[in-house]
Amino acid sequence: MKRNIYLDHAATTQPFPEVLEAMLPFYGKYYGNPSAGYELGEKSKKAIEEARGMIAATLSVDPETIYFTSGGTEADNWALNFAARMSKNRSVHIITSEIEHHAVLNTCKELEQRGIRVTYVPVNRDGIVDLAYLARAITPETTMISIMFANNEIGTIQPVEKIGWIAKKAGVLFHTDAVQAYGQIPIDPNRMGIDLMSVSGHKLNGPKGIGFLYAKKDCDLKPFLFGGGQERKMRAGTENVPGIVGIGKAAQVSHRIMKRKIQQEMMLRNYLIQRIFREIPSVKLNGSLDMRLPNNVNVSIAGVNGGALVALMDLEGVCVSAASACSVGSGEPSHVLLAIGNSKEEAYGSVRLTLGPQNTREEIDLALELLKKSVFRLREMEEN
Amino acid sequence: MKRNIYLDHAATTQPFPEVLEAMLPFYGKYYGNPSAGYELGEKSKKAIEEARGMIAATLSVDPETIYFTSGGTEADNWALNFAARMSKNRSVHIITSEIEHHAVLNTCKELEQRGIRVTYVPVNRDGIVDLAYLARAITPETTMISIMFANNEIGTIQPVEKIGWIAKKAGVLFHTDAVQAYGQIPIDPNRMGIDLMSVSGHKLNGPKGIGFLYAKKDCDLKPFLFGGGQERKMRAGTENVPGIVGIGKAAQVSHRIMKRKIQQEMMLRNYLIQRIFREIPSVKLNGSLDMRLPNNVNVSIAGVNGGALVALMDLEGVCVSAASACSVGSGEPSHVLLAIGNSKEEAYGSVRLTLGPQNTREEIDLALELLKKSVFRLREMEEN
Repeated sequence: MKRNIYLDHAATTQPFPEVLEAMLPFYGKYYGNPSAGYELGEKSKKAIEEARGMIAATLSVDPETIYFTSGGTEADNWALNFAARMSKNRSVHIITSEIEHHAVLNTCKELEQRGIRVTYVPVNRDGIVDLAYLARAITPETTMISIMFANNEIGTIQPVEKIGWIAKKAGVLFHTDAVQAYGQIPIDPNRMGIDLMSVSGHKLNGPKGIGFLYAKKDCDLKPFLFGGGQERKMRAGTENVPGIVGIGKAAQVSHRIMKRKIQQEMMLRNYLIQRIFREIPSVKLNGSLDMRLPNNVNVSIAGVNGGALVALMDLEGVCVSAASACSVGSGEPSHVLLAIGNSKEEAYGSVRLTLGPQNTREEIDLALELLKKSVFRLREMEEN
Repeated sequence: MKRNIYLDHAATTQPFPEVLEAMLPFYGKYYGNPSAGYELGEKSKKAIEEARGMIAATLSVDPETIYFTSGGTEADNWALNFAARMSKNRSVHIITSEIEHHAVLNTCKELEQRGIRVTYVPVNRDGIVDLAYLARAITPETTMISIMFANNEIGTIQPVEKIGWIAKKAGVLFHTDAVQAYGQIPIDPNRMGIDLMSVSGHKLNGPKGIGFLYAKKDCDLKPFLFGGGQERKMRAGTENVPGIVGIGKAAQVSHRIMKRKIQQEMMLRNYLIQRIFREIPSVKLNGSLDMRLPNNVNVSIAGVNGGALVALMDLEGVCVSAASACSVGSGEPSHVLLAIGNSKEEAYGSVRLTLGPQNTREEIDLALELLKKSVFRLREMEEN
């Protein structure tokens, strides 16, 4: 059997066995429509509310603030469209950052086409948003600040609490795309001043095709998908019951193991970064070293094409990424790597390794040897 | 164990065993992100394209016309929002019917709030749209006619081919919500003049949380959810790989067994209708007898409350519905039953029984006895 070392947990993750186990009955005998008036439907409804409660518990929030969606992208689109429609009588302004996920950036670009004004706050070399710039950008038309919790490519964690404070002071809603952060590091929306938050199930060892939008009670959220009365009339469509059960269980397990997982991932991550720097010449770490997701390594390697490196590593049975999975094939250099001051060449020469709770020291050792081998081979080819 | 006779297939269905079997590997070892550049991701990508091909084959269309969504509701919202944005320079007009699913009706109501003009075409006592009214309603501003293929409550099948012809003649797009029809009866978008079509997986023994929008190539569809480049840049968000594999398999199996299923369902349906009329006094069939989904029975029973009947039948282990699952709990009488000329009382007194391929004659016999018993009991209570 082919070797498989999976170091691309920022792209997606394998569902925990407990997650699949929890979901299966709802593909089997508990298939009722949660809106139905009979017992079989009630079982589905109860399972949904249990999952909602499990998620709410991880955030210390009211279960009624959790709205299930088809994933992080829908949650981001929902939040931003809500911001765009918050005022009927005056023009609307949204503030976001230059290094957001495309689910935020491309939605903002679409909203600009419809006449909404958007400010893209720059970041420093570590990928941290310029808070002074952010505060100055607020106008009376501003309805929302949307800044991601942690970056999907370079792992930089934003000063979310400070942003929440700036937003609150200005009377502006604060939305955060926490797709990369939720389930990985502790999040407390109330303490951090987060009004809305997007989460995706498959990034925390839950299923694909499910996510949620957290929305604080007093923010007066409006629906995005219209139809039946599901999700307290806020998100229409027959509920993805197995998916909801799955993300609930994934949230619970992720938070139960979080402390241990963070310790283990940070240890392996730091070990990997140290060895890369010691054993591969001309490399550069992308993103902050301190304000960084515990599982993220992103390095630019001189004289190497990231895409070619991914392909060579794949031949060796190691899954890594050249950019975020979402922009693969686009041919464009990463907007994140450019925004933190890299040259196009450095951006094309980047590789991302993102660890998970199952990764072992042996896997990291082996992956490093294969990385070195691949880098030296590519550099040799470059020279010839 | 409690008896379970499931007669609510219009609300949702149990996934076929083959569907779950096809999905499981993608919750297990094939968990890769389809956008990833390595083999594990390619496996997911290939599975998606296989599912797309299986669906396209059932419709005799190009696979590139199929865009996966989170369900029928998202597909409906997408199609109607597309219609609303088709013209930037002039006002837009959309034509739909009075008996659409709420995913269409409530989206239209939302669009009206944003200044879009919507015409709601009435239906006759059978629930068939008034084609003359429809044709007269078309103006130079009309961008789309959205008429459902078959109704979710009363099972009436619309004269889709004629509507397609009217739309084509007027140079207007024709969208049909085929959530209740696809997988149940043959659909040929090219022959029927359908430009866009919404489908939901869980109505055809596929999983919940997945559906698709069919959009003819030359209709120049625009995205609804923005973000990554998935679905040929038309529907962002990491693909729900297991869900897509599931709906693909469900589509394949449904079409393989369709002919036999239709025969069996029609036989049982007609048998059930005949016995209801013979054995329960003061009942009335809702919807057309000829232009009717093979599995739908919907009757108004005088002196009986539909909700109470559902509850009594549930106690006996029989799942039936008082209205569409989506409007349960809303307290309003069904807009469909009112639109075909029922009084409020008749609407409240309706019960829907929708059959599936697993239902047997024995189940129908037993369900009928329990229905009679429940009706007589409720009528007795009414009299006292």
